[in-house]
Amino acid sequence: MAKDKKMVEQITSMEKDFAQWYTDVVLKADLIDYTSVKGCMVIKPAGYAIWERIQAELDKRFKETGVENVYLPMFIPESLLQKEKDHVEGFAPEVAWVTHGGLNPLQERMCVRPTSETLFCDFYKNEIESYRDLPKVYNQWCSVVRWEKETRPFLRSREFLWQEGHTAHATAEEAEERTVQMLNVYAKFCEEVLAIPVIKGQKSEKEKFAGAEATYTIEALMHDGKALQSGTSHNFGDGFAKAFGIQYTSKDNKLEYVHQTSWGMTTRLIGAIIMVHGDDSGLVLPPRIAPTQVMIVPVMQKKEGVLEKAAELKEKLSAYRVKVDDSDKNPGWKFAEQEMRGIPLRVEIGPRDIEANKALVVRRDNGEKIEVSLDEIDTKIGELLEDIQKNMFEKALKHREEHTYVANNWDEFKDIIENKPGFVKAMWCGETECEEAIKEETSATTRCMPFTQENLGDVCVHCGKPARKMMYFGKAY
Amino acid sequence: MAKDKKMVEQITSMEKDFAQWYTDVVLKADLIDYTSVKGCMVIKPAGYAIWERIQAELDKRFKETGVENVYLPMFIPESLLQKEKDHVEGFAPEVAWVTHGGLNPLQERMCVRPTSETLFCDFYKNEIESYRDLPKVYNQWCSVVRWEKETRPFLRSREFLWQEGHTAHATAEEAEERTVQMLNVYAKFCEEVLAIPVIKGQKSEKEKFAGAEATYTIEALMHDGKALQSGTSHNFGDGFAKAFGIQYTSKDNKLEYVHQTSWGMTTRLIGAIIMVHGDDSGLVLPPRIAPTQVMIVPVMQKKEGVLEKAAELKEKLSAYRVKVDDSDKNPGWKFAEQEMRGIPLRVEIGPRDIEANKALVVRRDNGEKIEVSLDEIDTKIGELLEDIQKNMFEKALKHREEHTYVANNWDEFKDIIENKPGFVKAMWCGETECEEAIKEETSATTRCMPFTQENLGDVCVHCGKPARKMMYFGKAY
Repeated sequence: MAKDKKMVEQITSMEKDFAQWYTDVVLKADLIDYTSVKGCMVIKPAGYAIWERIQAELDKRFKETGVENVYLPMFIPESLLQKEKDHVEGFAPEVAWVTHGGLNPLQERMCVRPTSETLFCDFYKNEIESYRDLPKVYNQWCSVVRWEKETRPFLRSREFLWQEGHTAHATAEEAEERTVQMLNVYAKFCEEVLAIPVIKGQKSEKEKFAGAEATYTIEALMHDGKALQSGTSHNFGDGFAKAFGIQYTSKDNKLEYVHQTSWGMTTRLIGAIIMVHGDDSGLVLPPRIAPTQVMIVPVMQKKEGVLEKAAELKEKLSAYRVKVDDSDKNPGWKFAEQEMRGIPLRVEIGPRDIEANKALVVRRDNGEKIEVSLDEIDTKIGELLEDIQKNMFEKALKHREEHTYVANNWDEFKDIIENKPGFVKAMWCGETECEEAIKEETSATTRCMPFTQENLGDVCVHCGKPARKMMYFGKAY
Repeated sequence: MAKDKKMVEQITSMEKDFAQWYTDVVLKADLIDYTSVKGCMVIKPAGYAIWERIQAELDKRFKETGVENVYLPMFIPESLLQKEKDHVEGFAPEVAWVTHGGLNPLQERMCVRPTSETLFCDFYKNEIESYRDLPKVYNQWCSVVRWEKETRPFLRSREFLWQEGHTAHATAEEAEERTVQMLNVYAKFCEEVLAIPVIKGQKSEKEKFAGAEATYTIEALMHDGKALQSGTSHNFGDGFAKAFGIQYTSKDNKLEYVHQTSWGMTTRLIGAIIMVHGDDSGLVLPPRIAPTQVMIVPVMQKKEGVLEKAAELKEKLSAYRVKVDDSDKNPGWKFAEQEMRGIPLRVEIGPRDIEANKALVVRRDNGEKIEVSLDEIDTKIGELLEDIQKNMFEKALKHREEHTYVANNWDEFKDIIENKPGFVKAMWCGETECEEAIKEETSATTRCMPFTQENLGDVCVHCGKPARKMMYFGKAY
């Protein structure tokens, strides 16, 4: 839809209908468009620019830990997918099948990768012979396909963009270390760059990845009190290695199986940014991830010298990601548009400001307006961007803390789930049956057993059996 | 295969068997591996790092011309692919078809994108209403699938990585301007960054892209005298716009069709780098695209102070992409490995060098060895890298010039094609029938009608009819 039509409509208030608010924001902030391909989306420039920044930041952090990028085929022959039993059971029901190449039927059908463990195993089997070939710490940036029934932009779509790291190690210890290391990279990235606080922990047996020995996760709380799994890291032990025959000769000349991990983050993170930071005026982007950090809006731009001064100011602020909106829309329209798109700072400059050697700086996160002398605007903008980043994280953290509850017994648990959207901390027996009963009765799922455990009692909040772990529960996307 | 096995084998000489030499280099320089998916490859770290640099350099140049990145679905519903007649005829025979999603057959089958004109048209149809929405200058980085029968790593594979730009403009002039602009971006990139000289020109009617009004191309000459189409830019006129109904309201309130272009470059460029610059010791990478520009090899590295000095030197050279090979392989082995991988400069430093405050710098392009004082090594390395880049371009240009021939009549043409691998310049009538006859008789194809035309006569080299254009002919990959 052309922009002029879209911007005059208001977005739904988040208090009134959070799901509709979300849809309005993704469309009106020009992040995506729907397509003729059901369940798939177009990621438009404003949305893709966020992904590019996520990629650049994550990729840098990966490479600092020794990760190398590769690219594997998008197709997986059916026989390869079937090699690891749990894995095929987990993924086969939701893959897209290619049956014809050109005009001819294929001898063996292939799925479009839903994830690439099997391909990496097939690759590593040839690549690894000796301990000298280890570790392998490879990653790829690509798209994957999962044939979901219900889809939502960024949160759950039939095709999505992600990175998938796949590593092979000589020992179980080293694999475990890498699994945790990457979860920590993810957590730091979310907190430092996206300003999203996360809970680090382990998934239950039921919720772990198909084929993994252990799945670690970071869980974030959205504004509506629902949880979003934001990144996962899996330790496979030697299960895949045994299924695929990936062995190496050790230093003392024995044949050993490798130990493997995988870890991934997706375009879902864009959904998290929207649902953690957004408000009724639209998107709010943390400065470190914002493709444009500062938008200069000339006021009365036809007056002599205004556009020149705006350009000069842009030059002065070139340490930041800065643009000038010199389109022929009126300033009020421009303000609304940049608020919708979540640009952290707006700088208004008109003839009177120029005369007084100042500009008006407006913060997106709290609406504050600050008069700044043009002499010190460079430093001031830097300080404000830092402050916004910090403020956004603190606000999100406060929101999570205020929406995290302790349930000491089953009645409290049910009451919280029904009346207080957020995380519920409770003791849990560790049994899949009990976990399924909790979901059945309340629709809450286990989110993670946090690495930082608290002792809230001795018995399971639901079944009363001896408690094994403190678990975060919640309704989730 | 583990590295220690591979490196002891020699690669085939390029004079003896160029095709085998190419295969040896891609495998032994660790660029790719074959996979269980027929016709698809793994791009390994050394290969993917080259692609990452190509992406970064091209993407920067695109954005300087106003390009914005987006991401569209990888699937195209059959009905959408069929909307433009020439386009579907060109691509339908070589696409992969998805027929099932999860356990159910799809209502309509979809192909995996072989290229995304139809999807962009479907998107632009909703996106464009008024002249204010124009131009749209979008690009995506993704993989595409074409079900080729014969495949070769990088040059022709069933899945490959590329970028595809798709633009929409108000006028035919603007579309033509963008088509040529992007071809020029490609040509400059090839010449400045990859050190590959290219011929810019137009494809014949027969060789143009399915659905295009005009296809422009850059053609490069490989070391064996075969041509490689290295990038193309297409002007679609309003053909797709009419098939898809993409109209806008002009300033004077009339409904008009948009004019469109598309342009793409692929991982095939890595094949071009190998075949233009490589030699019998392996890959030779131009400094501007080399993921590692300088490899420091400590000699007698167990002697006190050697590794420390190597690390210090790395720090000193941090303006370049520099690494230290401190593995426990012997220096001779390391030298061979880095030659195979095409690293532009090797710096050897051992106890005696340290004592004399110097290092030995070895050029990959010509084997020259230069003693350099450690005091001025930083500047010297910069000069050498520049010189290698320049030298490699000049060498490739000389090779092309020496292998470009003029055919004044049909006997000369046949003689050149049979005996002198390279480009043949000749006058041509412009008829598809004649072009097909030439291919039939000699296996040479039309490469391009260069923008810079020369008058070599009045009649077609083959049929004797009046000549319309000077054409470059050649055997091609």
